[in-house]
Amino acid sequence: MSAPKEGVVLVGAKPTMNYVLATVIQFNQGAERVIIKARGRAISKAVDTAEITRMRFLPGQIEVKEIKIGTETVGEPGKQRPVSTIEIVLERKK
Amino acid sequence: MSAPKEGVVLVGAKPTMNYVLATVIQFNQGAERVIIKARGRAISKAVDTAEITRMRFLPGQIEVKEIKIGTETVGEPGKQRPVSTIEIVLERKK
Repeated sequence: MSAPKEGVVLVGAKPTMNYVLATVIQFNQGAERVIIKARGRAISKAVDTAEITRMRFLPGQIEVKEIKIGTETVGEPGKQRPVSTIEIVLERKK
Repeated sequence: MSAPKEGVVLVGAKPTMNYVLATVIQFNQGAERVIIKARGRAISKAVDTAEITRMRFLPGQIEVKEIKIGTETVGEPGKQRPVSTIEIVLERKK
């Protein structure tokens, strides 16, 4: 079975380099596109993940295709609050 | 003298709401476009600033036109390190 063409990396509380390596591995296994997603304070780490992957690990090989931001509601009913989200789409250059 | 058509808000260490209000004021003074910029850990706050402005303060009136990420080098010579950057372009809807 071949690797999926599109991967997702969900950035959370672990060190940035974990997410960088997850992204690099997906590209090296044949993904054409990896979407890096994060919420709240992890958003900065998602941008770091994209930049470190693009500049240091796969220089000249991938590009930022699209960046979307949005708002989701999180928390139990009665304690709900809005949280910002980001999706960074990285694609292998043709 | 009329207000400039384009404004910039540089997001740093202050509370998010300071930057939201700075953005809203620029639109209310006639700016067609406001660029929200941040580096490093302030990137999450820049996304919050854009989302709170767009969803809560000026709903239906502005849109996210473009988002760019990049890498800059900061620090004294010999102690230089890369830092991620973001620019979020908000525009008044026509």
